[in-house]
Amino acid sequence: MPPTIPFDIAKLVTFCLQEDVGTGDITAELIPIDKTISVKLISKDNGIFCGRPWADEIFQQVDSSLTVNWNIEEGAELYPGQTLVQIAGSARSILTAERTVLNFLQTLSAVSTMSQHYASLVRHTTVKLLDTRKTLPSLRSAQKYAVRIGGCFNHRMGLFDAFLIKENHIAACGGIDAAVSKAKALYPNKSVEIEVQNLNELELAISAEADIVMLDNFECSNILKAVKLNGGRLKLEASGGIEADIMVSIAETGVDYISLGALTKNCQAIDLSLLIE
Amino acid sequence: MPPTIPFDIAKLVTFCLQEDVGTGDITAELIPIDKTISVKLISKDNGIFCGRPWADEIFQQVDSSLTVNWNIEEGAELYPGQTLVQIAGSARSILTAERTVLNFLQTLSAVSTMSQHYASLVRHTTVKLLDTRKTLPSLRSAQKYAVRIGGCFNHRMGLFDAFLIKENHIAACGGIDAAVSKAKALYPNKSVEIEVQNLNELELAISAEADIVMLDNFECSNILKAVKLNGGRLKLEASGGIEADIMVSIAETGVDYISLGALTKNCQAIDLSLLIE
Amino acid sequence: MPPTIPFDIAKLVTFCLQEDVGTGDITAELIPIDKTISVKLISKDNGIFCGRPWADEIFQQVDSSLTVNWNIEEGAELYPGQTLVQIAGSARSILTAERTVLNFLQTLSAVSTMSQHYASLVRHTTVKLLDTRKTLPSLRSAQKYAVRIGGCFNHRMGLFDAFLIKENHIAACGGIDAAVSKAKALYPNKSVEIEVQNLNELELAISAEADIVMLDNFECSNILKAVKLNGGRLKLEASGGIEADIMVSIAETGVDYISLGALTKNCQAIDLSLLIE
Amino acid sequence: MPPTIPFDIAKLVTFCLQEDVGTGDITAELIPIDKTISVKLISKDNGIFCGRPWADEIFQQVDSSLTVNWNIEEGAELYPGQTLVQIAGSARSILTAERTVLNFLQTLSAVSTMSQHYASLVRHTTVKLLDTRKTLPSLRSAQKYAVRIGGCFNHRMGLFDAFLIKENHIAACGGIDAAVSKAKALYPNKSVEIEVQNLNELELAISAEADIVMLDNFECSNILKAVKLNGGRLKLEASGGIEADIMVSIAETGVDYISLGALTKNCQAIDLSLLIE
Amino acid sequence: MPPTIPFDIAKLVTFCLQEDVGTGDITAELIPIDKTISVKLISKDNGIFCGRPWADEIFQQVDSSLTVNWNIEEGAELYPGQTLVQIAGSARSILTAERTVLNFLQTLSAVSTMSQHYASLVRHTTVKLLDTRKTLPSLRSAQKYAVRIGGCFNHRMGLFDAFLIKENHIAACGGIDAAVSKAKALYPNKSVEIEVQNLNELELAISAEADIVMLDNFECSNILKAVKLNGGRLKLEASGGIEADIMVSIAETGVDYISLGALTKNCQAIDLSLLIE
Amino acid sequence: MPPTIPFDIAKLVTFCLQEDVGTGDITAELIPIDKTISVKLISKDNGIFCGRPWADEIFQQVDSSLTVNWNIEEGAELYPGQTLVQIAGSARSILTAERTVLNFLQTLSAVSTMSQHYASLVRHTTVKLLDTRKTLPSLRSAQKYAVRIGGCFNHRMGLFDAFLIKENHIAACGGIDAAVSKAKALYPNKSVEIEVQNLNELELAISAEADIVMLDNFECSNILKAVKLNGGRLKLEASGGIEADIMVSIAETGVDYISLGALTKNCQAIDLSLLIE
Repeated sequence: MPPTIPFDIAKLVTFCLQEDVGTGDITAELIPIDKTISVKLISKDNGIFCGRPWADEIFQQVDSSLTVNWNIEEGAELYPGQTLVQIAGSARSILTAERTVLNFLQTLSAVSTMSQHYASLVRHTTVKLLDTRKTLPSLRSAQKYAVRIGGCFNHRMGLFDAFLIKENHIAACGGIDAAVSKAKALYPNKSVEIEVQNLNELELAISAEADIVMLDNFECSNILKAVKLNGGRLKLEASGGIEADIMVSIAETGVDYISLGALTKNCQAIDLSLLIE
Repeated sequence: MPPTIPFDIAKLVTFCLQEDVGTGDITAELIPIDKTISVKLISKDNGIFCGRPWADEIFQQVDSSLTVNWNIEEGAELYPGQTLVQIAGSARSILTAERTVLNFLQTLSAVSTMSQHYASLVRHTTVKLLDTRKTLPSLRSAQKYAVRIGGCFNHRMGLFDAFLIKENHIAACGGIDAAVSKAKALYPNKSVEIEVQNLNELELAISAEADIVMLDNFECSNILKAVKLNGGRLKLEASGGIEADIMVSIAETGVDYISLGALTKNCQAIDLSLLIE
Repeated sequence: MPPTIPFDIAKLVTFCLQEDVGTGDITAELIPIDKTISVKLISKDNGIFCGRPWADEIFQQVDSSLTVNWNIEEGAELYPGQTLVQIAGSARSILTAERTVLNFLQTLSAVSTMSQHYASLVRHTTVKLLDTRKTLPSLRSAQKYAVRIGGCFNHRMGLFDAFLIKENHIAACGGIDAAVSKAKALYPNKSVEIEVQNLNELELAISAEADIVMLDNFECSNILKAVKLNGGRLKLEASGGIEADIMVSIAETGVDYISLGALTKNCQAIDLSLLIE
Repeated sequence: MPPTIPFDIAKLVTFCLQEDVGTGDITAELIPIDKTISVKLISKDNGIFCGRPWADEIFQQVDSSLTVNWNIEEGAELYPGQTLVQIAGSARSILTAERTVLNFLQTLSAVSTMSQHYASLVRHTTVKLLDTRKTLPSLRSAQKYAVRIGGCFNHRMGLFDAFLIKENHIAACGGIDAAVSKAKALYPNKSVEIEVQNLNELELAISAEADIVMLDNFECSNILKAVKLNGGRLKLEASGGIEADIMVSIAETGVDYISLGALTKNCQAIDLSLLIE
Repeated sequence: MPPTIPFDIAKLVTFCLQEDVGTGDITAELIPIDKTISVKLISKDNGIFCGRPWADEIFQQVDSSLTVNWNIEEGAELYPGQTLVQIAGSARSILTAERTVLNFLQTLSAVSTMSQHYASLVRHTTVKLLDTRKTLPSLRSAQKYAVRIGGCFNHRMGLFDAFLIKENHIAACGGIDAAVSKAKALYPNKSVEIEVQNLNELELAISAEADIVMLDNFECSNILKAVKLNGGRLKLEASGGIEADIMVSIAETGVDYISLGALTKNCQAIDLSLLIE
Repeated sequence: MPPTIPFDIAKLVTFCLQEDVGTGDITAELIPIDKTISVKLISKDNGIFCGRPWADEIFQQVDSSLTVNWNIEEGAELYPGQTLVQIAGSARSILTAERTVLNFLQTLSAVSTMSQHYASLVRHTTVKLLDTRKTLPSLRSAQKYAVRIGGCFNHRMGLFDAFLIKENHIAACGGIDAAVSKAKALYPNKSVEIEVQNLNELELAISAEADIVMLDNFECSNILKAVKLNGGRLKLEASGGIEADIMVSIAETGVDYISLGALTKNCQAIDLSLLIE
């Protein structure tokens, strides 16, 4: 079941059409205003498809009279040669919308493809892979949606929806226990995660009854110790520059979550192209 | 000399702070409102630094009373351990601004670093490497600025500032000559680029006196023939899924421009971190 | 320590100045443009003061050269005759800003005063009083800030930052256990609250390990049974049209939270006025 | 006949959906995306219904495919158990829109109900009850529309559409006569109201041919004298912290208008709820 | 004394800088980023100067570090060779701001100059010349400010701030008397103007006690009759395609107002230029 | 074939409806909400019609249920008495939309009419008449569209889409040759225009291979010399306060372009009116 779509994707789409179309598509003037075409959008890569709601919004804003027939569901597999969608209508409108549609689909499918790849590596474990706040500026909610489409999970959306207590916050409160207590007291329905540097701090976090503990840059062997020490009391998240190879080993420790900046801070665009029929 | 900055980067920055801070940084409440800190932002990678104007705008919007001292110029080399900037002031403000600043710098420095890398591969030739409209949604003008910082060059910004005539436009006009003539007639001060599929079409484009010809998916040997055929009359641009290795060979043909979607559609974030002093 | 301020209160303030000042304060034209005055803002009621950040933003947007000296801290007690702030500068600017400032302060202080009143009634218990999403349109985050200032606590900000699973969601998932499990699986760092209609459902919610259970329209005697049954395992929230008198009895059952729509859906404005010196 | 609707209520509705839905309704994900439901919105209070245009705009923005059938006209009486509207369509969409719709209806119906209550108290007189600029921030035009729906009348919308000359303006002009003359000279088609403190000033305002005179905090007996003195020459408005009991006496003096901050600065939300069929 | 400035001129200025600067001033890149210049803005025409607040806002938005010294007051006379303002600072910033500043000043000074011209023609009479709603799209409030600067007066700002009852409204109400009564009943503090086609209708409007009567396309002789018939009871406005020559005759009839679409629907730009010192 | 329409004309239209309708059309309240009318919009002038896309957007935003039947194509000739469009539907909606529609059509048709007039004067030559950046604030892209409709051509849209190198830029680069070279190096697909003061500088510009040379305030005889000297190598543009009479002589020199600020900085509105049937 596809994840929830953020409200007002219209605003982001307007911004992106403005940056591409701006004062008008001058090359489109070479085409008669009443000429119609039929095109299909083709994948040239393997991957996981993502971005339909954004594409639909673009077509709607550029020309609500276009006929848009999707051949693929959000989250389905992409393969070279596959037709994603067929669009018919004004040639000017379709060519004007093309690049903005492709840019959203190639970027969001890149995120879902990467997410699906990482998720597949740890399918034999119970770990959940999480994204981070290391995202491409302005694409936070779109990328986090794509992460979900690819089979990974979302860490907090931003600074507003969950606690993540780091060294500085701990110091300001006078210790782990005080920091967790204060956080829990402040916002009853926000989960409280705290970052720890070692097993001693983990014990303090367990006593403080945090919801989640972030094991910051723990070696794999220490993560294993942490999992044992914890005994399922809290949720444990391994974090800190984790590469693909070590990720599998970490997953096998039984840790609950691994967070990966790579899911959203990097992007290897999926290759798509528009074919005029 | 740094390139021109687009007007109203404030709008993009507001959008990005909204997505991260939203209804407020709840963890920041654990820190006394009058606590001040001093931090420095450190590079953990090699690369080319880019994004100061966006970072400055973020600090300004979050808390205009922060003291921000830059230790690096836009476009300078990054190396691990290097201090980019020192910031002093309200602990809450600095921690709230941190991630949005890092996200801009890591993304834009990624673009300038990639651009500098490609540019260095062809420094022994006269070619200019160009970006494309394959950009991350909403980051078009920021990325194109970063491309310039990295030593590559900008193709058109969008559909509004130059002609790029493709097959469909040519067909609608009844041929290359007609298409170029019509374009030149429509907008006297817009450059006219036309895409050709083979050397015959190139000859037509030369007769039509286009400004630039895009050699679409030409093999390297054909690019060489095109360069000779052209004899410096028009500008020639090689385009179409060009990888790093073949790029150098193409550059050595004497072609004027090579356009590379990879400069802006992919992103390998530069690793940065904030150190509290 | 005052709670975190939502990002971009500037946008709401601009909207509100637009609705009051619009095409310009015509009566202000009767006053010479260079006339300066000094005024003070006086309370005519008892209560808890709230709204300084919004007032400061209004003064800033109307005329950044005004001198604004506050005599009261956010959250301090108000009494008749008390001076809240002294403002000096352009007479036109001060009179133009006056009503928008007063409207924010009288509305937000109303919320914090009401919150403080309810909180004081249950100070002898351990209950925390929570607000709801029943807020005045567009004032959600401002009112929730005022609730905190008044000594109550915030339930979720909106539909985005915590689960609140109701009958319909439970039915769609096939039961309480399935609904809670699915929610926990979807978003690891979002707290999961579920609404129950009776003690049987409470037992199911406890087994399902929800974070919080909302006891929907439970009679006081049943809340007491729920508290005993629960034995501190989950957090319990009493909810549903709770009036002041019954609220105290409910608080004394030992329930963790009581949520009160009245904190934010009603408003009894604090009376303030501007005195020209 | 319903009053005119302000242009661009879409902007306010977008703002309010943004504050509630934000990055997405996470609980809605527990419901299959293709599940449909039929619901009805029920009143639990007596009152005067107000807010249909805002509700319609919310449904339109959340999901334009919802079927919305109203059973009540704007301004009609509400009673417990009454069905206001039936909505059918996507379960996710309806549950996502629910709270924002309810918040608008409960707030605006509160205003129209209060207005109707006050209006009913003075129906045996010729007085018109007016609202003020003491409104809930950002709801100025919506509340003033609701005041009209409830049978009271609107004072000026803001600082831009009518003169209201107070002590400071009078002093700056050098007297009541000079102030009124200057105002009339400045904007020919704006009505000129002036505030007076006593009967002497009223005489000056009458000589100056103001359109309306505001009797500021006059005792009831003085209002009666003012009405007689005026002899129907100007319109007279009684103003200043007028409570319900004294309001009736004032109305019976024959004064033209009584302005009441209470119509819009306070809010006693009408209780509504959504029933799933 | 200059008229009131509409709130949020910043929004219009942002819009206009966006349309001119957009993705960046590419020619400015030819100038070193640290080069400073000093320039002065010179008039090449006679006229009445208008537009300082908009110019100041442009300089502020482009580069708040520019030094801006005005040599002329709003509303003062312009003559060829006169220096309006001296600006010093970044050469790039000044050249980027130049055109938008000039466009505002040349357009608004055109309006104030035209207004002053018309006003001077009727200075021997008591008539007030009014603008209309026939304005350049998006410049309504800026142009109406300029009309005032030039010595004419403002009719209503828009559809929201005064009644102007025309044939269709009269027909819908069943006559002049009914229309005026209804209007006065609806909004107590809005002035009521009604359009009449002949002297009979004028008599009806007088009986109905409208505030202003618009004599629609009356011949000069009929306006004179109307003035006599009215005997100073209401305000009379002559309207309808009135040219300069006939305007003077009309003014001499003793009519109160003449409204002139020409003040704002036409524009003969004042010639200004920037001189680099 | 009509020129390309800028993206997001919706934003400008919203701004303009806001300035006219604002908090609501109060006079419209005199008309029953369900009354329908049928109207037609008539021209009272000769000219060239322009502005349909803006009018359509206004009708859409005010009331999408109106029936709008156009009788005239964009760019067709206007004559007195001609019906432009028939609109049927809600009387309130039509009267509310009327003035904003008329203001766009009268302003844009003024531009296209003026453009067509100038173009007709030089039809016997090969010159193209260009607009400038001297436009009415916020109407840049709308006016440039109208210039095209009238048969003239667009110079650059703003500072972002083409080079126009003036004295200051030349000085900063150290000469014409250096300035042109640098510009060509910076942005490969932007055309490079340079301003020259005399024939010597023209020779330098020709050597430098600029795309276009602006002959700044050249006398007609010198333009003729410039045309001969150039021999068709570059495009030549005559510029600088050119009046209608001298324009024809200049056109006959064989110069490629003449740019005319008068096309867009002045405005002589086309007279239109709404007739209710």
